[in-house]
Amino acid sequence: MSEDIFKVVELVGTSDESISKAIKGAVAKAGSTLRHMGWFKVTEIRGHIKGNEVDSYQVTIKAGFKLED
Amino acid sequence: MSEDIFKVVELVGTSDESISKAIKGAVAKAGSTLRHMGWFKVTEIRGHIKGNEVDSYQVTIKAGFKLED
Amino acid sequence: MSEDIFKVVELVGTSDESISKAIKGAVAKAGSTLRHMGWFKVTEIRGHIKGNEVDSYQVTIKAGFKLED
Amino acid sequence: MSEDIFKVVELVGTSDESISKAIKGAVAKAGSTLRHMGWFKVTEIRGHIKGNEVDSYQVTIKAGFKLED
Amino acid sequence: MSEDIFKVVELVGTSDESISKAIKGAVAKAGSTLRHMGWFKVTEIRGHIKGNEVDSYQVTIKAGFKLED
Amino acid sequence: MSEDIFKVVELVGTSDESISKAIKGAVAKAGSTLRHMGWFKVTEIRGHIKGNEVDSYQVTIKAGFKLED
Amino acid sequence: MSEDIFKVVELVGTSDESISKAIKGAVAKAGSTLRHMGWFKVTEIRGHIKGNEVDSYQVTIKAGFKLED
Amino acid sequence: MSEDIFKVVELVGTSDESISKAIKGAVAKAGSTLRHMGWFKVTEIRGHIKGNEVDSYQVTIKAGFKLED
Amino acid sequence: MSEDIFKVVELVGTSDESISKAIKGAVAKAGSTLRHMGWFKVTEIRGHIKGNEVDSYQVTIKAGFKLED
Amino acid sequence: MSEDIFKVVELVGTSDESISKAIKGAVAKAGSTLRHMGWFKVTEIRGHIKGNEVDSYQVTIKAGFKLED
Amino acid sequence: MSEDIFKVVELVGTSDESISKAIKGAVAKAGSTLRHMGWFKVTEIRGHIKGNEVDSYQVTIKAGFKLED
Amino acid sequence: MSEDIFKVVELVGTSDESISKAIKGAVAKAGSTLRHMGWFKVTEIRGHIKGNEVDSYQVTIKAGFKLED
Repeated sequence: MSEDIFKVVELVGTSDESISKAIKGAVAKAGSTLRHMGWFKVTEIRGHIKGNEVDSYQVTIKAGFKLED
Repeated sequence: MSEDIFKVVELVGTSDESISKAIKGAVAKAGSTLRHMGWFKVTEIRGHIKGNEVDSYQVTIKAGFKLED
Repeated sequence: MSEDIFKVVELVGTSDESISKAIKGAVAKAGSTLRHMGWFKVTEIRGHIKGNEVDSYQVTIKAGFKLED
Repeated sequence: MSEDIFKVVELVGTSDESISKAIKGAVAKAGSTLRHMGWFKVTEIRGHIKGNEVDSYQVTIKAGFKLED
Repeated sequence: MSEDIFKVVELVGTSDESISKAIKGAVAKAGSTLRHMGWFKVTEIRGHIKGNEVDSYQVTIKAGFKLED
Repeated sequence: MSEDIFKVVELVGTSDESISKAIKGAVAKAGSTLRHMGWFKVTEIRGHIKGNEVDSYQVTIKAGFKLED
Repeated sequence: MSEDIFKVVELVGTSDESISKAIKGAVAKAGSTLRHMGWFKVTEIRGHIKGNEVDSYQVTIKAGFKLED
Repeated sequence: MSEDIFKVVELVGTSDESISKAIKGAVAKAGSTLRHMGWFKVTEIRGHIKGNEVDSYQVTIKAGFKLED
Repeated sequence: MSEDIFKVVELVGTSDESISKAIKGAVAKAGSTLRHMGWFKVTEIRGHIKGNEVDSYQVTIKAGFKLED
Repeated sequence: MSEDIFKVVELVGTSDESISKAIKGAVAKAGSTLRHMGWFKVTEIRGHIKGNEVDSYQVTIKAGFKLED
Repeated sequence: MSEDIFKVVELVGTSDESISKAIKGAVAKAGSTLRHMGWFKVTEIRGHIKGNEVDSYQVTIKAGFKLED
Repeated sequence: MSEDIFKVVELVGTSDESISKAIKGAVAKAGSTLRHMGWFKVTEIRGHIKGNEVDSYQVTIKAGFKLED
């Protein structure tokens, strides 16, 4: 039977290197307290500028994880 | 006085029968840990297809509950 | 000639049974004062929760009806 | 390796009975020419009104299917 | 290094006086259990009407706070 | 039984003082012809500028009121 | 003092000739019962197709008019 | 019985004369391979500028056509 | 190499005749100070009503132009 | 003749007191270099939180001003 | 003359390495059956998570190609 | 005191290599005339296709910079 329930949390990862590192960082950090995360969806890509250069990326994701029975 | 504060959580319920069963399942599951839920709002209706038939519905809701004093 | 003009009204139907009963109730009620309604579009699906169960559905629709000449 | 590619098609199913029958009809019809459909997402729920009653539901879905190698 | 991770929570504050009091109430309440909140974003402004007067404001915010290392 | 039907109207209130006065004005004015208004939702905040100063606020709201049986 | 209140109505004009004729028709028709209309905003442009040709345009507008004191 | 199924395709028509010619061109072109097109909806109006003058209009439409039994 | 950078400006053209004249007017006016404009995108179509007739169209566009090296 | 052209600029005002002070500050600042500003529209309301209290409001507005002939 | 007509298709590319590889894969795959593709637009970035790590990226694009005369 | 005012500009960066290079290029170019840029937000990711391969990325950003006192 497939009547699973998922909870969705919203996270912002930051990286001074790339968009994907910001996503990976948020997923890894959340994984230290949440189990069973199954998917994510990017909802916003922002960043800081310093001295006319991109200083860091901030990527907001929604991540879903299965609630245990 | 009506200065209550609510928290909003996002949940995905699934059902292989109907959209409303997916909503009810998510509300019931969340109710086992959250008290004082007062309302929900549907934000997405998706589903899985298997063998050219709808296999299950996945309904995303936001549910609000009152924070205790 | 097809230069008809329609007016669009926004209604919220409620039902403690199902989403479609909420839609039907709103259409029937509006029909007691509006003639010539031709179509509807669902714009929001919400509901009330009581005792960790779905207590009622509230479905917002826009309904269009032809203005008489 | 998971480098699959999917195509997404947009369909409108209609039913004079229910929202879910409209979804099921669209999926079944599409299945007669498309193989490997895996998921759908509801993007609009509309309907026709006749004699102040809901005459039919029109549900727009996007359905994704895997392109064969 | 700036690889901080933030979590975003959604809250609804209410006030019978003003929009900003509703925001402040939600932030203060959340602050009793969350540390390191850094920013908020208003996502909806609603309210109740009683006797043809605005009875209360309900302001939905998303608030971000830094996850501790 | 909770099968109430609501109608939603869209109003623009204006005030040369504040956003909340614009909301209150729209609600009070509508209340002279509509009974049973229960809630509002802000959908747009605009304003006029004169001589490089804010001259007035225009706040668009949707207000819902219960249709009588 | 500029504390005017406006009401907003939603209309669909149709024309088998052009988008602007559909707008003009809706405004003229509404003007037979509403006074003081001041502005409109286009919210949707649709149309019917017959025999692989555009048969008519349907343009949805929101129109605002000042409520009398 | 009204259980018809429609498919929706997205097209971009271009015209150096007018928005409506861009729509008509897309509908006519699509009609050479698709039968039973019934409606369209404009989803984007763009254009090219050359020498500070509008050089062409690009209008994106979604067009629906009935799938044959 | 194609590493060009474009700037996007937002303009509102008005015309008492047609939507396309409003667009053309905005492009021509902007062209007196901006060079290298390449494209536009319509973001809003509004208008004024006087005496129950459309008095003027206001069309908001975003226009992109290449920054010189 | 009403063939005026307007330019729209996007500004963020900040205030540690209120939303309306943030709007007023942005309008006043812009007014020191732009003439003929006529209207604004709020597009985002955010803020900073420090020590679990709202530290400042950041309100993003779009402001339109008439281009001189 | 520039009265070209384009069709727009929606595709989902997946990659376990990066967002851009997911885009490239979708474009390459579509290119095996579609000629004259000219542009794409990213409409969604999602992904799968396994063992608290990003397992794959799923990027949805719309791609436009010119219909042949 | 934190009553700073920011202006927001919209830019499109292009790169034939990656999304992030397109962002960096836009920021660097804008930095040659704007000082005090503090943040950016990605609003659109598009690209050109040539010979069934991604030829270049076009990334639209909004960038905010502080207006000097």
